[in-house]
Amino acid sequence: MSKPSIPQGTRDFSPAEVRKRQYIFDTLRVIFELYGFQPLETPSMENLVTLTGKYGEEGDRLIFKILNNGLHEKKEEDKAKLHAEWEKVVSKPYSTPVVTERALRYDLTIPFARYVVMHQNELAFPFRRYQMQPVWRADRPQKGRYREFWQCDADVVGSTSLINEAELLCIYQSAFAKLQVPVTIKINSRKLLAALAELCGMPDKMMDITIAMDKLDKIGWIGVANELKERGISDDGIWQIEKVINVKGTNDEQLAAFSDIMQHSAAGMEGINELSKTLAYYKTLFPEASSVVVDISLARGLNYYTGVIVEVVCAHPDVKMGSIGGGGRYDDLTGLFGLKGLSGVGVSFGIDRIYDVMDELNVFPEQLAEGTQAMLVNFGGENETYALQLLTQLRNAGIAAEIYPDAAKFDKQMKYANKRGIAYVLLPGDEERTKGMVSVKNFVTGEQKMVSVSDAVNTLKG
Amino acid sequence: MSKPSIPQGTRDFSPAEVRKRQYIFDTLRVIFELYGFQPLETPSMENLVTLTGKYGEEGDRLIFKILNNGLHEKKEEDKAKLHAEWEKVVSKPYSTPVVTERALRYDLTIPFARYVVMHQNELAFPFRRYQMQPVWRADRPQKGRYREFWQCDADVVGSTSLINEAELLCIYQSAFAKLQVPVTIKINSRKLLAALAELCGMPDKMMDITIAMDKLDKIGWIGVANELKERGISDDGIWQIEKVINVKGTNDEQLAAFSDIMQHSAAGMEGINELSKTLAYYKTLFPEASSVVVDISLARGLNYYTGVIVEVVCAHPDVKMGSIGGGGRYDDLTGLFGLKGLSGVGVSFGIDRIYDVMDELNVFPEQLAEGTQAMLVNFGGENETYALQLLTQLRNAGIAAEIYPDAAKFDKQMKYANKRGIAYVLLPGDEERTKGMVSVKNFVTGEQKMVSVSDAVNTLKG
Repeated sequence: MSKPSIPQGTRDFSPAEVRKRQYIFDTLRVIFELYGFQPLETPSMENLVTLTGKYGEEGDRLIFKILNNGLHEKKEEDKAKLHAEWEKVVSKPYSTPVVTERALRYDLTIPFARYVVMHQNELAFPFRRYQMQPVWRADRPQKGRYREFWQCDADVVGSTSLINEAELLCIYQSAFAKLQVPVTIKINSRKLLAALAELCGMPDKMMDITIAMDKLDKIGWIGVANELKERGISDDGIWQIEKVINVKGTNDEQLAAFSDIMQHSAAGMEGINELSKTLAYYKTLFPEASSVVVDISLARGLNYYTGVIVEVVCAHPDVKMGSIGGGGRYDDLTGLFGLKGLSGVGVSFGIDRIYDVMDELNVFPEQLAEGTQAMLVNFGGENETYALQLLTQLRNAGIAAEIYPDAAKFDKQMKYANKRGIAYVLLPGDEERTKGMVSVKNFVTGEQKMVSVSDAVNTLKG
Repeated sequence: MSKPSIPQGTRDFSPAEVRKRQYIFDTLRVIFELYGFQPLETPSMENLVTLTGKYGEEGDRLIFKILNNGLHEKKEEDKAKLHAEWEKVVSKPYSTPVVTERALRYDLTIPFARYVVMHQNELAFPFRRYQMQPVWRADRPQKGRYREFWQCDADVVGSTSLINEAELLCIYQSAFAKLQVPVTIKINSRKLLAALAELCGMPDKMMDITIAMDKLDKIGWIGVANELKERGISDDGIWQIEKVINVKGTNDEQLAAFSDIMQHSAAGMEGINELSKTLAYYKTLFPEASSVVVDISLARGLNYYTGVIVEVVCAHPDVKMGSIGGGGRYDDLTGLFGLKGLSGVGVSFGIDRIYDVMDELNVFPEQLAEGTQAMLVNFGGENETYALQLLTQLRNAGIAAEIYPDAAKFDKQMKYANKRGIAYVLLPGDEERTKGMVSVKNFVTGEQKMVSVSDAVNTLKG
């Protein structure tokens, strides 16, 4: 038998890793609930037709599909319906036999839209939900990119109020403060990017312009200018873009400068107005902090954004890491499933990257690593019985404790406690038992002392 | 476009359902940690060879397999290795093209064994882990049976001490007490069942005997006797079994009677000795409660159990539900992956059934349903700004609160709060704002009162 392994791009999470990840999830959950967001969970599998055609051609290719083996319940008329549905979606005849009708969740957004449409009559709108679940993509695995990874999204649908944008900024601010990750939250509007394309006299080139500008951090202005030229932007257009990119200053100063440059663009003035309102709401809600900065070069890849967009990066100088969160306003996402006119806005937390940043900054709470706080050494016979009684007392006091289950050699038991990283070892031997006391050994300092059981409990709780 | 739907046998979990499920998971997590168990998470996908041949022929058929589409990284020599591996496992040539090499997790036990073997050099033994994750089976869906469902397991490997069995009984006892589900914990030993087969003069018929006896609750003794006859048990054998089944009384009385009946069976005496030791350890650890009863008819389906076995049923007279938990001692599970001689014992919690029982008994904490505790009505303009300031004060005090994001008609806002089931509505109008106060409306009693902001905070916290 060859050595067992796990599929490429997947991970086992060790106890220490699960605890740290759980800490991130719990922290976010508390904040989402505080802001009135409600939890949702959708199945790992969706019908393939729900996912196909939603993520572009490349996305479709990366969807993990599930074989139909063992699923015999499909009736002939259902198959015909499925084929018809398929042809509507991919506009090609369904020629292959049906080997797959289900696929693994590719993101949390499409299942959310699907859920909202299915439950539109039960839900109270605006509907705010958060969702923290794994997604799967058949991407080539590489450092920091997995085939199974976790997404964590918070969205509001059914309201166009910019209070929603501001509240999502607050959620970012509170969450990263609580997680002790210093961040910069970049904010922009797709409408400003549209105005910029107008300004260049090339309104249909908005995507080209944004794709190039998005690389400003990586390749610098000369690189961006070259790419803009390659993408067919005129020299005058590039000059206009440079003017916009060179705007510096506070958020208010930047927005004032943009108003000046874009005064003849309706989209531009709308975008500036929305950003300025969002920032005002944010300041009212969160007067003390401000990590939010306007950044006209921010583009965000996804096509479906239509209004304000945001992105979070770690602001610690030693951390080299791309975006650890992002989101924005999108119109009509549920239109994909037949429910038109529902505007939404959402943000996403990049759990895996946040984990890596927190590890690098060493900001996970220390007690997470520990798990078990105390181990009772098992000396067998009557001492074992005494140890079991002590064990129950410790647990009743809320102390995570265990007993070595066999009366093994002392060294073996101590080696176990050491390997587990357990802070305290309790030694209930003959003397301790007859006196009704217990010896407590601090594994870090090496100090050992015989104390009353209640003193031991207090030491371990403190 | 046809109406969107989800795959048969899968479920969306609504906010109220997620909160209740989370409550169960959190309760169990706290108890596992208290007992020194460590969390583990394994990938949703395993290599197909890891799972094939582990769950019997029927099990193999029910494994959800994932198509290889888009996965081009496999080299030719790896394929050859895979085929060779496959042939060792299924003892048939690998004739079909490789369309699937990965599959969804079918249970938590095999991935756990695979993890222990892969990480045997890093782990401290005995290794205690808990794991709460979904599993997938292509079973025909029916009431209470899903294709995606959650398992929750706690296991100890690398120790034969019966303290482990006793601690797992304590975990069951504490967990169901905390969840407010009254239970009976049945306990038996596979060794007693082996002895019973010996007693019938048919030691090779142990599985037939246990399968028939397992149905005692459902079909009664006459039914069981008939099935035993059909399965080739002699009349004398059936008479022996009846004698054993008719043993009644306390756990001690039952064990004494079995000692008498099985005195000439080494396996029987060993099983009785193990049960009696387990119960003694349990009593030392947990003197106050006893829901644990010896039940010689308990068999547990899984073949891999070799020692003590347990099963939990709800003891409430109104609840008709099968087992909500079960487990036992197994020898050599990791032997499947080449690591021999590691004994283990584990228990499992049936999350979906526990959820249903708790719902039926109405024992979920009331505050779970709520989520948002207070909604601020949005009267627009300066009142909106005032409301946002109040909102931040509520949240800073730990109160889950939201504002209606638009200055919509009053009725519309109240309808939303009502549909969401929000307990308190806060009305910051002109008068409230100028006085620096706020009106608090209790949605249950209908009572409304203008109070200071700090009084409002105290009302909502209390």
